[in-house]
Amino acid sequence: MAAVEFIKDLCTPALIIDLDQMKRNAEGMLERFHTLGVQLRPHMKTHKTLECADIMTGGSRRCIVVSTLAEAAFYADNGYDDILYAYPLPFDKVERCAELSERLSLFQVMVDNHLALQELKKRPLKQGQVWKVWMKLDCDNGRAGVPHCDPAALQLALEIWDTSGVELMGIYAHCGNTYACQGEQQIKAVAQDTTKIVLQFMEKLEAAGIKGVKSSIGSTPSCSQPVPDMALLSEVHPGNYIFYDVQQSLIGSCSLEDVAVRVLTRVIGHYPHRNQLLVDCGWTALSHDGGGRLPTGYAIIEGHPELKLLSMTQEHGRVEPISGKLDFKQFPLGSLLTLMPYHACATAMMHPVYFVHSKGKIIDTWKPTRGW
Amino acid sequence: MAAVEFIKDLCTPALIIDLDQMKRNAEGMLERFHTLGVQLRPHMKTHKTLECADIMTGGSRRCIVVSTLAEAAFYADNGYDDILYAYPLPFDKVERCAELSERLSLFQVMVDNHLALQELKKRPLKQGQVWKVWMKLDCDNGRAGVPHCDPAALQLALEIWDTSGVELMGIYAHCGNTYACQGEQQIKAVAQDTTKIVLQFMEKLEAAGIKGVKSSIGSTPSCSQPVPDMALLSEVHPGNYIFYDVQQSLIGSCSLEDVAVRVLTRVIGHYPHRNQLLVDCGWTALSHDGGGRLPTGYAIIEGHPELKLLSMTQEHGRVEPISGKLDFKQFPLGSLLTLMPYHACATAMMHPVYFVHSKGKIIDTWKPTRGW
Repeated sequence: MAAVEFIKDLCTPALIIDLDQMKRNAEGMLERFHTLGVQLRPHMKTHKTLECADIMTGGSRRCIVVSTLAEAAFYADNGYDDILYAYPLPFDKVERCAELSERLSLFQVMVDNHLALQELKKRPLKQGQVWKVWMKLDCDNGRAGVPHCDPAALQLALEIWDTSGVELMGIYAHCGNTYACQGEQQIKAVAQDTTKIVLQFMEKLEAAGIKGVKSSIGSTPSCSQPVPDMALLSEVHPGNYIFYDVQQSLIGSCSLEDVAVRVLTRVIGHYPHRNQLLVDCGWTALSHDGGGRLPTGYAIIEGHPELKLLSMTQEHGRVEPISGKLDFKQFPLGSLLTLMPYHACATAMMHPVYFVHSKGKIIDTWKPTRGW
Repeated sequence: MAAVEFIKDLCTPALIIDLDQMKRNAEGMLERFHTLGVQLRPHMKTHKTLECADIMTGGSRRCIVVSTLAEAAFYADNGYDDILYAYPLPFDKVERCAELSERLSLFQVMVDNHLALQELKKRPLKQGQVWKVWMKLDCDNGRAGVPHCDPAALQLALEIWDTSGVELMGIYAHCGNTYACQGEQQIKAVAQDTTKIVLQFMEKLEAAGIKGVKSSIGSTPSCSQPVPDMALLSEVHPGNYIFYDVQQSLIGSCSLEDVAVRVLTRVIGHYPHRNQLLVDCGWTALSHDGGGRLPTGYAIIEGHPELKLLSMTQEHGRVEPISGKLDFKQFPLGSLLTLMPYHACATAMMHPVYFVHSKGKIIDTWKPTRGW
């Protein structure tokens, strides 16, 4: 395909990113935590590109968090360092983690159980290097982590601290429970709870003689609406904010104007007998995330609050008015519609290439890494 | 990563394909329609690989259907011909379609409206070649196609027939409404209806002087449970049958034993306080398709009908018993679970590589094409 100059000329479906908005989102987050005196460790999972990572790290290529080892290797291969693989240590990947630890100055893994620590001990690093380990604490999020109220949490931290060949780097909590929030107040309440729990745990560590250990919490809602106590943490690790999405706007992390990502689609069918348009965006281009529960279905159709993306199959999307009769003349065959995705991470995952624009002019194409 | 010899040694999550079962599925479909005297035009959308296409075409590399132009180009670049791009002609891709038409001996497009035909006329093919066009008929499926009961259907067929530079190749119907069926009887009823409607339309064409035009219907359920009248069609175009999946077994297209695809995952967390396991399969490895509505959640966990894949985030899956207390000793950290996906097309789409095995021994890795 020849190089395309403008959004309107792209073959659809296409994931388009507004570079200016994306930079504003990145700078906003960098500034917010610079002001609070807290290190920002941005998460790469939403986009998985080098270019976006450069923007999120302010060009430093240091201090990132990833959710797959494929991402870790991709960034390591491209000059990144100080990478935290924030995932309950998978036993099948210990050797690959060891190789990254031996190669980078600061590759960090995460554990939330005693057996994972045993796996690290079984594979000592070469040339006197030590495993750099974060412990995951579950602060009422209920995914991974040792429950904060379980005595096993302090025990595990002490065990990591006391193990030779292993260094306890920090305590890590994901406040994914902010995703159930609505509005700034609820987000701040969860952010406050998580911060308080982590800081109390840090005090327990100090009391047990563990010092110089970092504390980190994260999630896009909590880091978009931080509470003052978060200034007492060492780090935060949000990710989705680089793009934002409809879900984040509903939670209260951002406004719809902050959303930097869209799926561009074209009208490919007129079916007046069922009052529907067909568009060339199926779940391969948007994902099923959100389950179609928005009043506008699976996405917001920009500039058309009267329309609903009712359903999708692999490569087709059905669009109809929320009520009343569709004026088909308004949507000629071949005309463009712009979808604001419910969940940017899920939508970006469906695309092998992202089209980056500034004011409608395509200025770059970015290729994400994939796999595990 | 070093080459892996056995399934059990793969890094997870991983999409694994049972080559022997896949070949049985392909041979079953080839034989079924060879016996009926109907041409099989297998759909590539489920897998999008060269290797699978070779098996589905019995090695001929001819007579396939694709749902994206990226697939069409991928197969054309690799020696395939007689490719039907069975998608309502997208106006932004006419030039790319023209190039494929000029390059292959039999590249075929699909239209369901008058304006699409005008787009083809605006771009005559070089050296006296003609556009090879199928017309899509909607036989009560309600996605794309001219409704069969609309007089516009015959009008459009006549217009294609009468247009110079364009050849009417056939009438194409997708009986996607079989996806709402339960059991052989319901599937056969839809297959019979669709066949009847298409054959009646063929009679109308004949009466209007249009002869030598093909008829094709398709969907995995209808082609897995065909009715005798389908012998009167020219072609069929199922796709999902190469892998099958839980959805197809629920519809009645196959039994669970026929499903050739799995997602391999490992236990990465034990959380007795909430009676849950964590596994390393999130929606990036399985997709959200099916919405978790199975009694076992988002997938069937092979050999463990007592377990439910309750929820997924990007890289994590929560597993709990359908009832009662989990025996964690049965599922040590690092141990493998095997997920049978709800929808093979959606799950395959999430993987940049498929691991192909025979009786647990990895014999190949296949890479699908992506994008549009």
